[in-house]
Amino acid sequence: MVTPSSPPRGPFITIEGPDGSGKSSLLPRLAATLRARGLEVVTTREPGSTPLGERIRSIVLDTEPKIDRTGRADALLFAAARTQHVDEVIRPAIARGAIVLCDRYADSSMAYQGAGSEIPLAEIRALQQFATGGLWPDLTILLDLPVEVGLARKGDEITRFEAYHDRAYHERVRAAFLGFAAEEPGRYAIVDATAGPDAVLEAAEAALGRLGARWPELRR
Amino acid sequence: MVTPSSPPRGPFITIEGPDGSGKSSLLPRLAATLRARGLEVVTTREPGSTPLGERIRSIVLDTEPKIDRTGRADALLFAAARTQHVDEVIRPAIARGAIVLCDRYADSSMAYQGAGSEIPLAEIRALQQFATGGLWPDLTILLDLPVEVGLARKGDEITRFEAYHDRAYHERVRAAFLGFAAEEPGRYAIVDATAGPDAVLEAAEAALGRLGARWPELRR
Repeated sequence: MVTPSSPPRGPFITIEGPDGSGKSSLLPRLAATLRARGLEVVTTREPGSTPLGERIRSIVLDTEPKIDRTGRADALLFAAARTQHVDEVIRPAIARGAIVLCDRYADSSMAYQGAGSEIPLAEIRALQQFATGGLWPDLTILLDLPVEVGLARKGDEITRFEAYHDRAYHERVRAAFLGFAAEEPGRYAIVDATAGPDAVLEAAEAALGRLGARWPELRR
Repeated sequence: MVTPSSPPRGPFITIEGPDGSGKSSLLPRLAATLRARGLEVVTTREPGSTPLGERIRSIVLDTEPKIDRTGRADALLFAAARTQHVDEVIRPAIARGAIVLCDRYADSSMAYQGAGSEIPLAEIRALQQFATGGLWPDLTILLDLPVEVGLARKGDEITRFEAYHDRAYHERVRAAFLGFAAEEPGRYAIVDATAGPDAVLEAAEAALGRLGARWPELRR
């Protein structure tokens, strides 16, 4: 229960979108604009950001050695990394009032293992509930991009995760993200990731402003 | 649907109990008695038994390096290893009619992460359903042992998993296993693991005989 004496928690903001959409370019620039205003920002990513998460990351994203994994195994591995990340990094940061900017979160599991690997969404959602204790982002910035543009941008740097899956898989993932955004327009902000980096940053900053009623420091 | 033309599947038998209860001694001896009758037996263990499972085993059971993990992270990691194990090893084996003898399975997660780490059992059960697609053992042989006897037997070989947890944790685990056996007396067979190896083998063979109505080859 929030009482007048409860310190306000910080906002939890996630950035979603396919590899090649510019998440890892946007994140530090967005953090820099907030830090320039004297705000505490924690930037983090999934899977990873804890010792356990980095071990899991090496299993799910390494191109070598090849290890067979089902879609359900992936969902469980990402969830294991996520629960540790929530407990060790995200909850402590927002509890002290910091702004958390996170590269991928539960919505990625909904899109990739749910829509991509065609595991029923209700099951993937229940798994996120188990892993996160019900912590969903206050804002999710979706960097939307046609599938072929994302794959072309990555070129030879394609990860095993992408290489494992066919074009139809990636199309299902994109459609799922757009569907989530349509279902939760209050939480999701769609940003056109084909625009240049400055325009993407500008759009992301505008999206943060939406949280201004609760976190006035996010208003520009 | 089982039709007259469906080939009969093999029995799925798990062995549960604390480290030090003699699971890994019993398993090959029990397999040998069945193989001596010309039966195909697959012996396997959790976590592990697939390339993915062995990677996960190295995370959850290694004593070094120390990596912080919550009970929920453990539950998800064991479930990730399990779902791969079910798809890659257990289901193909029983589908061709083999007898599967498995050292630890979903009941271990119920006992250790559920009762031991005090995560609600209903949540752990739902996770097993997600991971296994509802595949529960036909028979579970529980090697029951007082906590202090199991810990003393392991001596210096104690794994990180055991070393992480206190005596009260292990008492909750033992009580949980006994509770599951009481709830499902048809599936569970409790074997006194303080008895010598020959007596334990004898009791385990007797327990297999319970499945004789469906699998007559398990009758002695």
